Amino acid sequence: MALIVQKYGGTSVGTIDRIRNVARRLMETVAEGNQVVAVVSAMSGVTDGLIKLAKDVTAQPSERELDVLMATGEQQSIALLSMAIHDMGGKAVSITGAQAGICTFGSHTRGRIKSIKPDLMHQYLADGNILICAGFQGTTEEGLIHTLGRGGSDLSAIALAAALKADICQIFTDVDGVYTCDPRVVKNAVKIDELSYDEMLEMASSGSKVMQSRSVEFAKKYGVVFEVRNSMNTHPGTIVKEEIPAMEAVVVRGVSIERNQARVTIAGISEPVAYTAKILGALAEAEINIDMIVANTAHDGVARQSFTMHMNDLGSAQAALKPLIAEFGSSAKLETEAGLAKLSVVGIGMRSHSGVAATVFQTLADAGIAVGMISTSEIRITVTVDEIDIERAAQVVHDAFNLHRVNG
Amino acid sequence: MALIVQKYGGTSVGTIDRIRNVARRLMETVAEGNQVVAVVSAMSGVTDGLIKLAKDVTAQPSERELDVLMATGEQQSIALLSMAIHDMGGKAVSITGAQAGICTFGSHTRGRIKSIKPDLMHQYLADGNILICAGFQGTTEEGLIHTLGRGGSDLSAIALAAALKADICQIFTDVDGVYTCDPRVVKNAVKIDELSYDEMLEMASSGSKVMQSRSVEFAKKYGVVFEVRNSMNTHPGTIVKEEIPAMEAVVVRGVSIERNQARVTIAGISEPVAYTAKILGALAEAEINIDMIVANTAHDGVARQSFTMHMNDLGSAQAALKPLIAEFGSSAKLETEAGLAKLSVVGIGMRSHSGVAATVFQTLADAGIAVGMISTSEIRITVTVDEIDIERAAQVVHDAFNLHRVNG
Repeated sequence: MALIVQKYGGTSVGTIDRIRNVARRLMETVAEGNQVVAVVSAMSGVTDGLIKLAKDVTAQPSERELDVLMATGEQQSIALLSMAIHDMGGKAVSITGAQAGICTFGSHTRGRIKSIKPDLMHQYLADGNILICAGFQGTTEEGLIHTLGRGGSDLSAIALAAALKADICQIFTDVDGVYTCDPRVVKNAVKIDELSYDEMLEMASSGSKVMQSRSVEFAKKYGVVFEVRNSMNTHPGTIVKEEIPAMEAVVVRGVSIERNQARVTIAGISEPVAYTAKILGALAEAEINIDMIVANTAHDGVARQSFTMHMNDLGSAQAALKPLIAEFGSSAKLETEAGLAKLSVVGIGMRSHSGVAATVFQTLADAGIAVGMISTSEIRITVTVDEIDIERAAQVVHDAFNLHRVNG
Repeated sequence: MALIVQKYGGTSVGTIDRIRNVARRLMETVAEGNQVVAVVSAMSGVTDGLIKLAKDVTAQPSERELDVLMATGEQQSIALLSMAIHDMGGKAVSITGAQAGICTFGSHTRGRIKSIKPDLMHQYLADGNILICAGFQGTTEEGLIHTLGRGGSDLSAIALAAALKADICQIFTDVDGVYTCDPRVVKNAVKIDELSYDEMLEMASSGSKVMQSRSVEFAKKYGVVFEVRNSMNTHPGTIVKEEIPAMEAVVVRGVSIERNQARVTIAGISEPVAYTAKILGALAEAEINIDMIVANTAHDGVARQSFTMHMNDLGSAQAALKPLIAEFGSSAKLETEAGLAKLSVVGIGMRSHSGVAATVFQTLADAGIAVGMISTSEIRITVTVDEIDIERAAQVVHDAFNLHRVNG
């Protein structure tokens, strides 16, 4: 008998009919001889409605109270889903994050999971229940309610799977799995059957929106095998797990893209070492997430440093950096460029296959697409291109590596 | 510095504007130099909406899951009320029933309070917070969520006042207090300034809808002084407290009425002692609450037993008793009468003043109103009259005891 954790997002439980659909799936999973724990989000729209209520009360709701308010959304879903299972003759109990022993720390509205005490869950499972647990929430040691921020329910599911030593954690969503590229962009993109945590991490952080990095990191840390699959059909999804040697046979696993990027360059810096810390400090203080960092020093020791960020942060970045430019001397100047996009090629096969970068650049050059910044990790190559070229760039790179054939 | 517990019902927090109104009141109470704990219900309509959702999922929602679902209503109110206080520059924290240490036992959807661990509440109060606590809920020792059933938020407030040794518990509602009679029935009814727990209990159980008996019993048991007052104005309300000798000076405190009553009579019973238990057992098994019980035995040992109940229970009562009648012998027969109402006269002064019953009967007789059943306690006389006569009966009895003058 396998123990399976299944996570259903807000869309999957967005209406009473969809709640019934999820109940049916859980019953089927039990009928196949498994123990099941479901982790559910608030019904879609509920959380937004609650935030709207809060905003009607005050322009700046306290994060402590927002957590108390928002945690009710999942609490409603779990009760309704349990009832739906009872209505079908199944056995189920709901538990809140607190009851599941999900102990958190950190800040309100973006709590982090510290530990899980699974005693009560084991007891309910031993009694033959389908366990319906509220995602996205936990409590501190002092009993304060925390929500876990964006992607919090995925994190709850992965963490519960780790604590319960589940055989697999299935993340149900509205797509069939992780694709070789966004199918809205690359028509012949195909679903990937299996990939490693590291590949999933690189894809998540380079634009693939399927899951947040921190859930994947958590799964990697505790060795939780998970599967991304569609709640509206029964197709097998994408399995994400520890790397195995056979995975290296595929040189490139997928291509991810991210639009709405902007670049800030500080040129003509004479003492780059001293100044880099100041630049990064000023951007961090302005709460701007920077992504790619490229630094270059010419023979005369004068340096250029470039950063990419979301286009919406460009104005704040300029404001934050302007005062520094004056300090950096008369030759220093700030250059900005919006309208960019990032294209990343990811695959652990890159470690053992040379020539991937050459293929990427040759392919883009052949298509007449200019490359701006370049950054790489051991299993990823990222380039910036003009946003207007991104779809074509994704397609030609996808084709160059035959991604519609080698995966799946 | 006094410690005041204030309870606000669903209507008082039914809109964002009303939540602001409550926040303002709490701030004012603090500005007057008090520590304040607010106990709040779900926004009016929210609980009904949640129950509707549950009914959409299943015809027979599990009570365990209904509790999980319904408890979210109060959790939303406390967060929003805290935010409203913050918005006005005040200091407040919300706590759920579980966080308030309200430990419950008994059945789901009608849990009972076992104990309260006020440590966290004392800590928040010591830090200068207005404490906003979810009414109507608690958790069992095992951590299961309980709601407390009808009037549950009043009970939460009284119980918190007891646990915190508050100076007073103010129950805010949509009326100015407890009246000598329902002002919609008796135009010159007046608000009672002060009455004893026992009088309040007799009035609650004989038709006055202001508070449930169990909250009053709890207050009596722990000596919690409480005040029923209006959340929409600042008039002083009705204080309910331990009896003091001066209270006996008022012979009759108030008149309460209850409509929609029915009577069932079993006549011609030859062995009443043996049969009474059977009759009461059959009614209890059918979950029928009976109220007045009047038994009479004639010289020949043949007895009549009558019971009053809500009119809606009459059909079930007939069904439950019919099989018994056959057992009781050929002379036994079942008589029923609907269209009745009860009128009760309540006052601890009755103990020391004779002639109250005589005045009641003479007054009703003078008005040509026939009395059916009669039952009494030490501080109450209850009679049944035809429902069509109840308003007139209430008025003449109210006048006979000068209730618009002697109270207040």
